[in-house]
Amino acid sequence: MQQLLHFADLFGVCVFAISGALMAGRKSLDLFGVLVIALITALGGGTLRDVVLDRHPVSWIRDESYIYAALLAALATVAWVRLTRPIPETGLLLADAFGLALFSVAGAALALEQQVPASTAVIMGVTTGVAGGILRDVLCNEIPLIFQKEIYATASLAGALVFVVLREAGAGYWAAATVAMPTILGIRLAAIRWHLALPRFHLLDRDRR
Amino acid sequence: MQQLLHFADLFGVCVFAISGALMAGRKSLDLFGVLVIALITALGGGTLRDVVLDRHPVSWIRDESYIYAALLAALATVAWVRLTRPIPETGLLLADAFGLALFSVAGAALALEQQVPASTAVIMGVTTGVAGGILRDVLCNEIPLIFQKEIYATASLAGALVFVVLREAGAGYWAAATVAMPTILGIRLAAIRWHLALPRFHLLDRDRR
Amino acid sequence: MQQLLHFADLFGVCVFAISGALMAGRKSLDLFGVLVIALITALGGGTLRDVVLDRHPVSWIRDESYIYAALLAALATVAWVRLTRPIPETGLLLADAFGLALFSVAGAALALEQQVPASTAVIMGVTTGVAGGILRDVLCNEIPLIFQKEIYATASLAGALVFVVLREAGAGYWAAATVAMPTILGIRLAAIRWHLALPRFHLLDRDRR
Repeated sequence: MQQLLHFADLFGVCVFAISGALMAGRKSLDLFGVLVIALITALGGGTLRDVVLDRHPVSWIRDESYIYAALLAALATVAWVRLTRPIPETGLLLADAFGLALFSVAGAALALEQQVPASTAVIMGVTTGVAGGILRDVLCNEIPLIFQKEIYATASLAGALVFVVLREAGAGYWAAATVAMPTILGIRLAAIRWHLALPRFHLLDRDRR
Repeated sequence: MQQLLHFADLFGVCVFAISGALMAGRKSLDLFGVLVIALITALGGGTLRDVVLDRHPVSWIRDESYIYAALLAALATVAWVRLTRPIPETGLLLADAFGLALFSVAGAALALEQQVPASTAVIMGVTTGVAGGILRDVLCNEIPLIFQKEIYATASLAGALVFVVLREAGAGYWAAATVAMPTILGIRLAAIRWHLALPRFHLLDRDRR
Repeated sequence: MQQLLHFADLFGVCVFAISGALMAGRKSLDLFGVLVIALITALGGGTLRDVVLDRHPVSWIRDESYIYAALLAALATVAWVRLTRPIPETGLLLADAFGLALFSVAGAALALEQQVPASTAVIMGVTTGVAGGILRDVLCNEIPLIFQKEIYATASLAGALVFVVLREAGAGYWAAATVAMPTILGIRLAAIRWHLALPRFHLLDRDRR
């Protein structure tokens, strides 16, 4: 079972590394830049979580396989694009939604193991799920995509919240994860399918200070 | 007295959360984006300080009230803007100056408690005071405001310096804070009133490397 | 010998502080902004390394001379530009290459002392060498230069890799450094001289998701 979890984690790492490599390609970075952005996208959220929770060594220092998985996924992405131009958008969005679900629940679960308050566990779930993508976008000089498109982080928040509430209510790890992960997947896939978005908060420029 | 300090801290958190929510509104983020930017603006400086000083658990994990204060302030800001368009610029600038004074002195004081050198305490005071705003601006893809407008961080630097020097010279916590906080407030309010700015350092594009 | 290392380290700090001050000048920041960007450029990479490795107190808290070296170098840069406009580009590029070589090897060496896996040591070498510059560019709202120009981080990567492989193979600290540092310097200087660059990874906008 532990091994299953590890494979799920590696799957999430690969998915986020691919999204980092694709963004780097849109910015025409060189090959090294592609690898760096892929690594940061895949491992940034978990690193931030571990450093804030004082959980050392951080995940990818404890277990090198994360690093190699991210690098391989990035190289495979470059090779794939070189060989066959078209990128399977739909498959990628689906994989990314799986990655988001896995990382958000894993982040909240790890935080709960550290005996932090429930609010912190929820925040750490969202952080693990979305911080890598935020770092990717900031490094590529874009307003983080997460703040601009259809519901994304909100799915992570909902799932992390469900997981933490169920765990605090006494549910087991697997039971809570079995409810929380489909929550994230469902919200995210519905948002993609019907272009759901939260209401925006507009402020006119004259209010500028 | 401890309780007074806690209220002052929460006041600073609220003020910075409001400034984060307003920036998010200028970028037309959605409601979740507003909350995230507000949280990062309000808690980012203190988190960075605690992580660099190895002071765990970080402030908002130790005490959940910071999180709720920031979220409430952000929601109140959105509600306020929806109901009555005009934003009380002057009141906000005043409140922000108070927040800057509180956070800078609190940051320097916390660092001194960790037995770090005086230079580190000053840097940590400024970090606590201004890093949240820097993160807010970087995430919203702007050159941090702090580097561009009238004297802001310099007020924080002056106050943190005064506080640390007085403490090292043997002054009590309250005596030092009573001098340092008005120093920050005074410099900042004078800068706003008379548009004071430090000289700029211009470098021509031909010097580009 | 220890003292020689410390001087080399301070030299690297000064070089990166100068590059930070020059970038701040291109963005017309005020004097305080120049100092902050210089400090972050010079000390950011080492701070990130120490925090991720849980190595406390971080370098510049342990030893204040780093802070003063960075501040002095930044002030000297401003004074120099005010007095005599021309900036000695070639000298600076050379100095920067030295700084990159010193920091990358020192970062990898420090990580190995913490008993981390080899892959982590290489990553920490590159992080120490380039993260300060990345932070500088992100704060100044540019796509990090490192991702855009001739081979830079790749030189750091090659040197850190050589150093770690030699150390793991049993070579002494100085022997490994004597091979690794010229590796970085050589690659970087060749890249500057002949405008060497890695192939880029282009992705068309229609692939956007």
